[in-house]
Amino acid sequence: MADRVTALARTHFASRAELVFHPQCFLTDGHFAGDDGARAAALADVANDPAIDAVWFARGGYGSCRILPVVLPKLGPRAREKLYLGYSDLGSLLAGLHSAGIRRLAHGPMPADIIRKGGEAAVLRALSYLVDKDKAALEPHVKAGTPHAAFNLTILSHLIGTPWQPDLAGHVLMVEDVSEHMYRIDRALFHVTSNEAMRKIAGLRLGRVSDVLPNEPEFGKSEEDVAQHWCRVSGIAYLGRADIGHDADNKVVPFGA
Amino acid sequence: MADRVTALARTHFASRAELVFHPQCFLTDGHFAGDDGARAAALADVANDPAIDAVWFARGGYGSCRILPVVLPKLGPRAREKLYLGYSDLGSLLAGLHSAGIRRLAHGPMPADIIRKGGEAAVLRALSYLVDKDKAALEPHVKAGTPHAAFNLTILSHLIGTPWQPDLAGHVLMVEDVSEHMYRIDRALFHVTSNEAMRKIAGLRLGRVSDVLPNEPEFGKSEEDVAQHWCRVSGIAYLGRADIGHDADNKVVPFGA
Repeated sequence: MADRVTALARTHFASRAELVFHPQCFLTDGHFAGDDGARAAALADVANDPAIDAVWFARGGYGSCRILPVVLPKLGPRAREKLYLGYSDLGSLLAGLHSAGIRRLAHGPMPADIIRKGGEAAVLRALSYLVDKDKAALEPHVKAGTPHAAFNLTILSHLIGTPWQPDLAGHVLMVEDVSEHMYRIDRALFHVTSNEAMRKIAGLRLGRVSDVLPNEPEFGKSEEDVAQHWCRVSGIAYLGRADIGHDADNKVVPFGA
Repeated sequence: MADRVTALARTHFASRAELVFHPQCFLTDGHFAGDDGARAAALADVANDPAIDAVWFARGGYGSCRILPVVLPKLGPRAREKLYLGYSDLGSLLAGLHSAGIRRLAHGPMPADIIRKGGEAAVLRALSYLVDKDKAALEPHVKAGTPHAAFNLTILSHLIGTPWQPDLAGHVLMVEDVSEHMYRIDRALFHVTSNEAMRKIAGLRLGRVSDVLPNEPEFGKSEEDVAQHWCRVSGIAYLGRADIGHDADNKVVPFGA
């Protein structure tokens, strides 16, 4: 994956983009790409390195919440200047960086998306945002002057009530999810919209909820039904769909205004 | 199930226990036993009825969080006097009742446990607690004078940061779970132990984590590994195992001291 993404970047951006994959990306420790210490140290390495302009998280899965308590205190002034891009499980780190006052954050494709059908387009979209801040890469509802944020819904739910819950007052929040039962989508929306601080968002946009696992009996409500239900209950404005998700069409959502 | 449980109660407790199944228990609405309004109204009915001594939740599944915002404001003074018993998804209601100041709450078997292998023993254990406050029904670590509480871990995670998060300062907290991937158990423990108020519990006991879904690759850590990890990170005392779980051996844990 790293070789394919590097070749793609070279073809399309020549010397304007140099990708450096940290050796940690190739480690294996059970479920994880290296143990918590190795993953936290790698992130601190690249975040604090003045020669690096942006941190592009390589892939999702599970585990970024585990390094939050360790890595955030290690981030110095250089870490505050650069851009961070990722999605899915990396929402834990986007939220943690946000809670640490770091503001150049974006939700969007990662290098590992190269293996999806049509994945080259996703990777090129991310690169065009990272290198050129290409407006064509952005989720089409993102407007200058309106603060936005985007998260995997399940990940955001697991940050509610922790020190890393992002303060999204006044933000349009976009959420997406994948490979969950519809009752879990409903429960995560109950959770996120029941938190007092989350009720201060400007509104909710629902990204794609893909590969929903079968429910026995049928849950009987769609993702838009349950999103509208919890927006109604919580007094949050439901703003419609968002062009984000676990797929090659996933657009970039920069955090903030 | 209702007939079998009723017959069992009659055989063992004769006229000392009269079970009344609310008609709502037999409704069907997609995934749910009646729509949110019907389920909330049924709970308010039995909770506010002076002729009823205890509310024994009939079964888990999913949906009790959906009625929280509706049912709690409907509970009058009679609802505060009686005992409530259930577990699994019903943790949402136990927590909601706790946050409303209702204190006669217990985590333990439900009528639907009758269909488990050995389920009659579970149902009789619950009845012996409901009718006789039989000490043999209690989880063996429960001690008079020490406040306890028990929850399904995933349900508790989805209450963190909501108005229904129970204040468990000074309580020994027991958690159990079923049919989750180990990475989800790890993530839920990250979540619960990262909340500031939850760090005020007296300690954590780990119930059974059964029917763990396969992880690819192997997660490489057991439920006790991840419980001990997050207790260490959060400064919460890990107190060992608890005799609760989604099985016929599930013991009763009364809330409070």
